[in-house]
Amino acid sequence: MIVQKYGGTSVANAVRIKRVCRRIAETIRAGHQVVAVVSAMGHTTDRLIELAGRVSGDPPLRELDMLVANGETITAPLVAMCLQDQGLPAISLTGPQAGVRTSDHHSKARIKEIRPTRVLEALERGLVPVVAGFQGATEDFEITTLGRGGSDTTAVALAAALGAEVCEIYTDVDGILTADPRVVPSARLLHHIAYEEILELAAVGARVMHPRAVEIGELYGVRIHVRSSFHKRPGTMIVSAVPMEDRNRVRGVATELGVAKLTVLGVPDRPGVAAAIFEPLSGAGISVDVIVQNVSTHGHTDLTFTVNEAEASKSLKLVEPVAEEVGAGGVSHAGSLAKVSLVGTGMLGTPGIAARMFRTLAESGINIEMISTSEIRITCIVKREHAEPAARALHAAFQLDQVPATAPA
Amino acid sequence: MIVQKYGGTSVANAVRIKRVCRRIAETIRAGHQVVAVVSAMGHTTDRLIELAGRVSGDPPLRELDMLVANGETITAPLVAMCLQDQGLPAISLTGPQAGVRTSDHHSKARIKEIRPTRVLEALERGLVPVVAGFQGATEDFEITTLGRGGSDTTAVALAAALGAEVCEIYTDVDGILTADPRVVPSARLLHHIAYEEILELAAVGARVMHPRAVEIGELYGVRIHVRSSFHKRPGTMIVSAVPMEDRNRVRGVATELGVAKLTVLGVPDRPGVAAAIFEPLSGAGISVDVIVQNVSTHGHTDLTFTVNEAEASKSLKLVEPVAEEVGAGGVSHAGSLAKVSLVGTGMLGTPGIAARMFRTLAESGINIEMISTSEIRITCIVKREHAEPAARALHAAFQLDQVPATAPA
Repeated sequence: MIVQKYGGTSVANAVRIKRVCRRIAETIRAGHQVVAVVSAMGHTTDRLIELAGRVSGDPPLRELDMLVANGETITAPLVAMCLQDQGLPAISLTGPQAGVRTSDHHSKARIKEIRPTRVLEALERGLVPVVAGFQGATEDFEITTLGRGGSDTTAVALAAALGAEVCEIYTDVDGILTADPRVVPSARLLHHIAYEEILELAAVGARVMHPRAVEIGELYGVRIHVRSSFHKRPGTMIVSAVPMEDRNRVRGVATELGVAKLTVLGVPDRPGVAAAIFEPLSGAGISVDVIVQNVSTHGHTDLTFTVNEAEASKSLKLVEPVAEEVGAGGVSHAGSLAKVSLVGTGMLGTPGIAARMFRTLAESGINIEMISTSEIRITCIVKREHAEPAARALHAAFQLDQVPATAPA
Repeated sequence: MIVQKYGGTSVANAVRIKRVCRRIAETIRAGHQVVAVVSAMGHTTDRLIELAGRVSGDPPLRELDMLVANGETITAPLVAMCLQDQGLPAISLTGPQAGVRTSDHHSKARIKEIRPTRVLEALERGLVPVVAGFQGATEDFEITTLGRGGSDTTAVALAAALGAEVCEIYTDVDGILTADPRVVPSARLLHHIAYEEILELAAVGARVMHPRAVEIGELYGVRIHVRSSFHKRPGTMIVSAVPMEDRNRVRGVATELGVAKLTVLGVPDRPGVAAAIFEPLSGAGISVDVIVQNVSTHGHTDLTFTVNEAEASKSLKLVEPVAEEVGAGGVSHAGSLAKVSLVGTGMLGTPGIAARMFRTLAESGINIEMISTSEIRITCIVKREHAEPAARALHAAFQLDQVPATAPA
């Protein structure tokens, strides 16, 4: 059994819906059972949200969920009737009908449980179930949506509940590449990637699949295949252990533009100060990214963090009064920055990778503004104009364009 | 408690939705409880059906229902959030959430029962329930739609289930007039009309409200107020007994263009022949309207009936072989006809109305092709070009432009 998820671009119009249906038909003729999960067509969701904005200054989330859920419940019956037209008996199911039970956090509900009785019933009757992604219902039959990446989450959770062999995520890219091909032309497709690696890649800007869906996949051991809906070549398989032939300690380079940094200077080194600085930002819904604080000297330290450039001036206004309150020396800020990251499982266990990264950047004349690392990622903040040369230099230095030397022929 | 139903034109865009919400607010401030029932915005339903046609040659009705039900579930949350924006707490409910249980005849389901638990619950909590019209669910949670006039039906049935004081149907006309004002400029608004009168008017072309909704209204004694959503003047109240002041035996003149007649000549007068002629038409979904058969002479008779002009040639092709089979003399046909009808309760009990109708037409030089009558209607089939002069002549002859003489000041 295969769960196939088709995103908004793949079902954007009638011609594309027909192509999706031909692919489902081919998979079935190849001997598989298929459960399809579909997103809203093209920009439907955006258009519904825009409509809401025209009748309400601040639409209640419960009503917004009722509204945007229609995006997916439009696609699902269209796909089901198109499959029938191609000779494949099919049945569309809303998220609630497919048994997707969620929490009551409207607009960002979490899946609590999937009771796929009707999905299994449909399969038994020889029908292809076409499930509306992104949506579910609470125990009280209130309609909810799952927030960003919701349809991916539906697909992976459904694959887990059904014990499907694989969950195929159809998208408009070939899979996960070693870098953004618009930045690094020699970027290469990765045939396998570990759950945690894709989580780091997604977090630093290589957005192909939503982290929530990957987390569920990891938790329940669902094999996820990210592939293109425009051709039949295999894409990237997300698995728990990357096979030997793909083992290159550095798996990819990720770049993210539009970064700004704020530095709170001369922060008194006592408990609670960092919390005092970040709480107003989180209260305003501003997501703080890389945070760096050095060891303090003489009881004072500098605290630097990055935010999305669009939120820089709002952040500054929130942080300045707090800085004064806690007795800091002031706040400095700089925009037009970018993040460049190397990602790979067990990378930090390998000596010399960080050093080689810094050396490569230095040799390209690129200054590093900030450094931040995790178990499987090294991130450097550089000037915006250095981001792309940096990515290209790193991609070449770590030979990411080449299939690892240990790979069989 | 008032149930207010707003049709597709009344909620066609954000500006109109805001106006609808202001009206709901005014009704509530005047001391009423309001339950709103809404249709799909403007041409949404047509656009969804068109989309279906692009992916499927013959969309299964179950999937078509899943698809078009989105029209109303888009409007309901928009109206609810707009009400909230105007300071009125509100909650949208899908048909199934509002407790509309239907038969499983997809695309033309009948309401079996309404269990308005959630509607009452919302009212108790001080919320305005905004119910998506036109849709319901079977006992198995399959989504159904109610077919033509479905939102009117939802509103009237809900008013019956809630024991509402009145069901207001907001539309783009002022109410029920004595004639089509485009044909008869002196047409006058009727303040009251009987259920059965509006049923006859609707059947002969004065389409304001769907007959199904009127039937439910009559069955459960729901007072229905058909009125304009563009101004605040009262429209027409549909009631079981028209008050004295409105008692004019002839209530209105209805015209319908685009009529064709077929005559099967020399039909042998034996049981089963009429059935043999009409069964293939009904099988092809062709609605036959006026049927006239005269007494037979010498064991043969002529059978004449009317169909919509657009279906005339298809009808002819279906009837000709049957006519030959049953040994009829042949089939003749004529198009470019129209129906002109007088409607009014107890009209036939009043001597001379039919005679005066025929005399009026004769004096206008209008030839009558066919005559058909019911308890409360007299219909003449005339040539298309005579329809409008006929309507004007009859409207004047029966003094429909004048408030009946018995009316109080």
